[in-house]
Amino acid sequence: MLKAAIVGATGLVGQQFVLALQHHPWFRIEALAASRRAAGQTYGEALRDPASGARQWYAGPEPEASLWDLPVEAAEDLDASRFDVVFSGVDAEAARVLEPQYAKHCAVISTASAFRYDDDVPILVPGVNPEHVQLLDVQRRQRGWRGFIAPNPNCTTVGLVITLAPLQRHFGLEAVVMTSMQAVSGAGRRGGVLALDLLDNLIPYIPNEEEKVRRETCKILGRCSAAGLEPAPLRISATCTRVPVLDGHTESVLALTQQPAPLAAVREAFARFGEDFVRLGLPSSPRQFIVVHDDPFRPQPRLDRDCDDGMATVVGRLRADTAFERGVQYVVLSHNTKMGAAKGAVLAAEFLVHRGYIG
Amino acid sequence: MLKAAIVGATGLVGQQFVLALQHHPWFRIEALAASRRAAGQTYGEALRDPASGARQWYAGPEPEASLWDLPVEAAEDLDASRFDVVFSGVDAEAARVLEPQYAKHCAVISTASAFRYDDDVPILVPGVNPEHVQLLDVQRRQRGWRGFIAPNPNCTTVGLVITLAPLQRHFGLEAVVMTSMQAVSGAGRRGGVLALDLLDNLIPYIPNEEEKVRRETCKILGRCSAAGLEPAPLRISATCTRVPVLDGHTESVLALTQQPAPLAAVREAFARFGEDFVRLGLPSSPRQFIVVHDDPFRPQPRLDRDCDDGMATVVGRLRADTAFERGVQYVVLSHNTKMGAAKGAVLAAEFLVHRGYIG
Amino acid sequence: MLKAAIVGATGLVGQQFVLALQHHPWFRIEALAASRRAAGQTYGEALRDPASGARQWYAGPEPEASLWDLPVEAAEDLDASRFDVVFSGVDAEAARVLEPQYAKHCAVISTASAFRYDDDVPILVPGVNPEHVQLLDVQRRQRGWRGFIAPNPNCTTVGLVITLAPLQRHFGLEAVVMTSMQAVSGAGRRGGVLALDLLDNLIPYIPNEEEKVRRETCKILGRCSAAGLEPAPLRISATCTRVPVLDGHTESVLALTQQPAPLAAVREAFARFGEDFVRLGLPSSPRQFIVVHDDPFRPQPRLDRDCDDGMATVVGRLRADTAFERGVQYVVLSHNTKMGAAKGAVLAAEFLVHRGYIG
Amino acid sequence: MLKAAIVGATGLVGQQFVLALQHHPWFRIEALAASRRAAGQTYGEALRDPASGARQWYAGPEPEASLWDLPVEAAEDLDASRFDVVFSGVDAEAARVLEPQYAKHCAVISTASAFRYDDDVPILVPGVNPEHVQLLDVQRRQRGWRGFIAPNPNCTTVGLVITLAPLQRHFGLEAVVMTSMQAVSGAGRRGGVLALDLLDNLIPYIPNEEEKVRRETCKILGRCSAAGLEPAPLRISATCTRVPVLDGHTESVLALTQQPAPLAAVREAFARFGEDFVRLGLPSSPRQFIVVHDDPFRPQPRLDRDCDDGMATVVGRLRADTAFERGVQYVVLSHNTKMGAAKGAVLAAEFLVHRGYIG
Repeated sequence: MLKAAIVGATGLVGQQFVLALQHHPWFRIEALAASRRAAGQTYGEALRDPASGARQWYAGPEPEASLWDLPVEAAEDLDASRFDVVFSGVDAEAARVLEPQYAKHCAVISTASAFRYDDDVPILVPGVNPEHVQLLDVQRRQRGWRGFIAPNPNCTTVGLVITLAPLQRHFGLEAVVMTSMQAVSGAGRRGGVLALDLLDNLIPYIPNEEEKVRRETCKILGRCSAAGLEPAPLRISATCTRVPVLDGHTESVLALTQQPAPLAAVREAFARFGEDFVRLGLPSSPRQFIVVHDDPFRPQPRLDRDCDDGMATVVGRLRADTAFERGVQYVVLSHNTKMGAAKGAVLAAEFLVHRGYIG
Repeated sequence: MLKAAIVGATGLVGQQFVLALQHHPWFRIEALAASRRAAGQTYGEALRDPASGARQWYAGPEPEASLWDLPVEAAEDLDASRFDVVFSGVDAEAARVLEPQYAKHCAVISTASAFRYDDDVPILVPGVNPEHVQLLDVQRRQRGWRGFIAPNPNCTTVGLVITLAPLQRHFGLEAVVMTSMQAVSGAGRRGGVLALDLLDNLIPYIPNEEEKVRRETCKILGRCSAAGLEPAPLRISATCTRVPVLDGHTESVLALTQQPAPLAAVREAFARFGEDFVRLGLPSSPRQFIVVHDDPFRPQPRLDRDCDDGMATVVGRLRADTAFERGVQYVVLSHNTKMGAAKGAVLAAEFLVHRGYIG
Repeated sequence: MLKAAIVGATGLVGQQFVLALQHHPWFRIEALAASRRAAGQTYGEALRDPASGARQWYAGPEPEASLWDLPVEAAEDLDASRFDVVFSGVDAEAARVLEPQYAKHCAVISTASAFRYDDDVPILVPGVNPEHVQLLDVQRRQRGWRGFIAPNPNCTTVGLVITLAPLQRHFGLEAVVMTSMQAVSGAGRRGGVLALDLLDNLIPYIPNEEEKVRRETCKILGRCSAAGLEPAPLRISATCTRVPVLDGHTESVLALTQQPAPLAAVREAFARFGEDFVRLGLPSSPRQFIVVHDDPFRPQPRLDRDCDDGMATVVGRLRADTAFERGVQYVVLSHNTKMGAAKGAVLAAEFLVHRGYIG
Repeated sequence: MLKAAIVGATGLVGQQFVLALQHHPWFRIEALAASRRAAGQTYGEALRDPASGARQWYAGPEPEASLWDLPVEAAEDLDASRFDVVFSGVDAEAARVLEPQYAKHCAVISTASAFRYDDDVPILVPGVNPEHVQLLDVQRRQRGWRGFIAPNPNCTTVGLVITLAPLQRHFGLEAVVMTSMQAVSGAGRRGGVLALDLLDNLIPYIPNEEEKVRRETCKILGRCSAAGLEPAPLRISATCTRVPVLDGHTESVLALTQQPAPLAAVREAFARFGEDFVRLGLPSSPRQFIVVHDDPFRPQPRLDRDCDDGMATVVGRLRADTAFERGVQYVVLSHNTKMGAAKGAVLAAEFLVHRGYIG
């Protein structure tokens, strides 16, 4: 068993890491770390609300009782040399300080954006850009680290990039127009969206989100060589909105392709995408990477987000583009806190184990 | 005072016509008509739910008490020669039968789609295509009617076309990509969306809606001459979705222009659009046709749908297109049951009075 | 394996029966029946929406693919002598005709209210009133049937009666004041609540619900002897409301007891209730009948409804009554479409198998 | 015109005070005060979000543009001798420090709970307990203040106490059982309820709310004499819950009366309650104090909260109590941010002007 630590363990993403790792066949939760304030308590104590005494568990079904007794350590004092991998669910600011400290000693898989845009840091999306792992070698060499930092993308990027990858491969990609309708869990708890602001309403703007989507999509779909990573020359327009949905980001996509993209061929490209990856049989892998619906009323976030425990990407409304007549339109749904966050990061870690980068 | 009848008066749109006309300075409600089942009752009686005895008023604040005592007539027996104008809020199937019957005698302003796509029928959007009224002359001549049928567009078309019109005029239009997030009131009550289907969810498809938006937008922005109406050669991609919002359709729009469209010029084109129309001082006219927000979090349906009593079109998130680099992106909000339905139809009728087509 | 039929199989409750029975260790789905219109099609075909071609599956995760191929029979022609038990999910009107027809030949477990209030018909709530099964003997004798009709209670009664039973047993019950906040799934699909009526809203009335709760609660808690069933002399005030929640009925309860009811004793009475029943190890039984929360913010419908797959009754906010000073207050949550409907009916059937009434 | 200051002017309650006072015929907004951080800016500047530049106006329609230019003063330095009345919308902690400082010089009308439970402080509910104003004399005398502090009750108390008052007067009151379904605006913005916690959910607990309701209701319905205020000997059980509704607290009430309370008499007692008060013609007064619905589906928060601009109390579902057979049950709705907060406080101030306590 590989030794894993979860940093930011009391937060929403940290809790999701706990759920994703508690019965993992390859990783054993060896340590939980959080702010200095929580350190010294058991995990169960650290999650208690001082006012009500209630345990603040937000990530769905509660984990195994034995986990409540694990001690919480201070993230800044954590000795990373004890672990094979650190899963980091802290925010970007904390990540900027803590993650390099850990990466000196071991692999760091992160949901934070702090290092996503650095030249020697790949944004790994399992099944999409396996060849980008070679950037980790560059990173280690340049920074003199034993480990590395491997962030996963923004949750809004995930469903988009997983569906654009087969289009790029089969038909070439020129331009993408995307409007997202994002779930509230994407905003997290601290600074989360108030019910007062979202009941009978939607909010047509999410700060920095569109820029992240554009930048990350081009990087993930870019070409990686010994010389480094060259972002895909793909022009993207993104409009990111928040809607009254709990989990699952829905995106309306129009993709202009370089070669003609007949619908039947697109449908097959979607349906077969990731076959090789799925065949690896990684523990957190979806059984089918992209599930395509013919029912025009699908995908719907409530009905489809839990497909393959939130790890499948679900597509529907596939049709020819009527504005440019050389592309396709579709709607894609991705579970923003499963494939789009902690569990997607665990899947990336599994792939890195498979490739020999962890363990 | 011009004599008006409301047909389909017990339905949701009919109730909105009642509200829009009850204190109107030009039109007096002379008759209310509905199905034969309701005929013979007072309006108040016809709206009572037989089971609970409750009055089924869905359109917001209740109208003046005196209206409850008006008799309801059978729509199919209505003698249209008694009126200057009939406001029709029935569904498409009923409209196909009833509206021609009325149009033999008087003007018919309709929210139904039955005749929208006929060659001699304009889809009038106040302030947008005033020159299309000449089609009404063609219609009268061809059909041998004293009156005419003047439908307003689908509620989803309204906000789109009002914002495309100034872009077309100033910069020329090539292509449009639009994703809508539509309110549940747009689905009406009969066959309306169940709470069971929309709580914590959205539905990525509204049957026939996208086709209507494409067809109507091209027609409304088309060129009208003695020879007839030539639709605008505009390519449109529309994705229409339903979200848990009560009123107000929000649309994310990317518009590719023929000439460069600097943001400041676009902003001014929006802000000044409809100035001439507003100057007419029609009773139901908004004071400003398009309201432009600089706050990136606007427009929001709950905060902005009642701007100018639901008659203003509200725009925000105006920015350069990053996918094609020759257009603009924005978000537009239009109140689907006010400007987008009955009250917009009343405004169209006011314009036809001004132009001498009614009265 | 016992042979089971599901009647009303295409409806929402019927679909829930399918889910509850598909992998059942004791019952095998032998037939699916529905209206004559659906008869002759496969189950998969019968569920298709003619307009969109989409399969209308509303009950959550889809059942095993093999079930789609089962033929649908006409409910009115169903030969009940082929089965050990019929699970009936039709509405009250249809139940009144169909269920006696089946009961001549076999056991009928029903979610319909049609026969609930007949003197020789018990309303069985597993774990609560096992001695009421003797009414089935009376029913058979009086009606000359080989089978019987055993309805389960209204979904709103279930959580209430399961928590009142231990109070009655340990402390005696005098009066109950209950206000429910009910989920929309309780209203079903036909005649279901429109999103238009429930977004940013609640509805303080559910026709007939309060009367059902009062009558059923007294019957279920009544004393059953050879002489028949004597309802409990319990006075109940119920206010039933509908709130924007998908699944899970929440009820605020004040129960006045005959003897003093110290909180610790009440807590224990709740926690230990149903121990004997649970020990039977019936396949659909919850592992704990009543789960008691000390966290004052629980139970919450979204967090707690799926406790023990929707079969546990979850209680919180237990405290002394401050209005009469001789009772307790608490909040109870019960999954209205699991323990409160089809799955609760399956559990009742399992109990009847155990007692020798089925099979 | 009387000179008024609004303290806590940038907060949600403060904004509501601004709306309620901007065109007031008796009060002129003379000063706006907030935290020291906001002091020195104009009101418009103080409301700007530093990140987005957007104006944070949460209270509905924006006030007159001229108000944006008013300077914001530091609450702790405010010279109260400049005003006839201070409207205080700060939280309890700040109120405890600031309000006595102002009350030395002028009347303080407050929505904070800081002084509600002091013996010499009345909780004034317009129309309900006018004789409690004499406590203000006691307060002034005991504390040596020129002014006084007059808080209004918790928003959940308001609808309850307005409907209990006529019952107490006509039939005597013994006990009350109440379950509330409260809107999210009652939780304010700071520490407000997250959409993540309330979509498809309800929360069965609001810290301290039930205790406040019990204590305040007894105090408001108490007897006031020269000797002080004696709380009503009324036993209350309250269960306060939060539901996904924006505005309007709905309460299910069972009230046990001392004398028989025939429904017709109760209905009349409700309908005529406050007639004398209404006759005073105070500017913010509802035209009818309690509006009674016979439609069993009413009141509904979205349909009824704005009755008389949120100042009427709306009652429905009036029926005999079936648990004790000596009381009534009903559902009451009160607008928690209008009659239940700032606008109710302004109405109280108007009454104090009428009685000569202000100005």
